[in-house]
Amino acid sequence: MQGLSCSTSRIVGCRFSIYPMTDNFVEVILNALREVDTSKVWMETDDVTTCIRGRSEHVFDVAKAIFIHAAKTSVHVVFNGTFSVGCPGDSEGNSYMSMNDERLNEEASIKEKVEVATQIALYPLNNPDYLQIIAEQVEVAKEHGTFTKGVHYASRLDGDANDVFKTLEQSFVNVYKTHEHSHVAMTATISANSPSKKEAI
Amino acid sequence: MQGLSCSTSRIVGCRFSIYPMTDNFVEVILNALREVDTSKVWMETDDVTTCIRGRSEHVFDVAKAIFIHAAKTSVHVVFNGTFSVGCPGDSEGNSYMSMNDERLNEEASIKEKVEVATQIALYPLNNPDYLQIIAEQVEVAKEHGTFTKGVHYASRLDGDANDVFKTLEQSFVNVYKTHEHSHVAMTATISANSPSKKEAI
Ligand SMILES: [Ca+2]
Repeated sequence: MQGLSCSTSRIVGCRFSIYPMTDNFVEVILNALREVDTSKVWMETDDVTTCIRGRSEHVFDVAKAIFIHAAKTSVHVVFNGTFSVGCPGDSEGNSYMSMNDERLNEEASIKEKVEVATQIALYPLNNPDYLQIIAEQVEVAKEHGTFTKGVHYASRLDGDANDVFKTLEQSFVNVYKTHEHSHVAMTATISANSPSKKEAI
Repeated sequence: MQGLSCSTSRIVGCRFSIYPMTDNFVEVILNALREVDTSKVWMETDDVTTCIRGRSEHVFDVAKAIFIHAAKTSVHVVFNGTFSVGCPGDSEGNSYMSMNDERLNEEASIKEKVEVATQIALYPLNNPDYLQIIAEQVEVAKEHGTFTKGVHYASRLDGDANDVFKTLEQSFVNVYKTHEHSHVAMTATISANSPSKKEAI
């Protein structure tokens, strides 16, 4: 039995921004976008954030690529976003779920070496086992070699942007597969080229 | 009866960053910080974010003040943070819970008029009624006159920064008071002085 008003497609979304800390931030963003193929995701930009939606692999592929192409400029750039799945009634962009699984930007992204410092938090909604589920993803990050430590409200990951995004994607997918109608959010703050450990706030 | 290992203080925290989109972003941040009295919150900054912890009113007072003093420069500035309460085992900074409720930065903050566009999302963990609880906070924002519309994964608020922060704080407090051991996260992306509706990503 299937609810008529409920999306069963498991469409994944990410609402995010890229912050280049430079006077020509617009140029950095537009140049990065020109290098990214976004044709496999639904995409909408407003004055606060951009929202992309589609199959999990393409959402992560596009988010990673936009960040990497902005960060390879050596400008201090931060990605700040929330990945989500299972929001009830959530169907806009469902046509993108029929795309095949070939990632359009992976080849270009893996050529770039960008060191990042990252803080992530997982929010499995409506799930009494959520603390255990979160703890399991810390183990995933340790296996990937990206886990650095726990901090208040978040886990810290360090390493190459491609490796860190791999951990983000694997953790998110693991959590949303915990059950058929799971509703999960994952926040990520990913920083590259920070001038010092003292200047962030 | 009281668990020994469990904090009952309901300490509130916010892990956030301020992003001034300018070459002299460090100066903008440091100048803003100089104008803010942070003595009533526990505070720790690393290379990705800053974490403040203490009584709810002081966490919101300090977060708002740092953002407003950065944004009054007219530089495009974004606040991106997650407010949290009820994280199990969470006690560092508990001594700050004995501070009185007088807000140290409110007087200076309300003098500044900064228009903001904001997207917020509420995550009441381990709560089967979470969708209803979220819907109730939309009504709070409507009463405050700050609610603009729902977008994918978030609610959009617009208006003066002081009014928007009032909605953020009221919504967060309403949700964490739903029960004694609630665990709640609320993300907020708050943008001021954006050059156009086309340039955000
Ligand atoms: Ca902008």
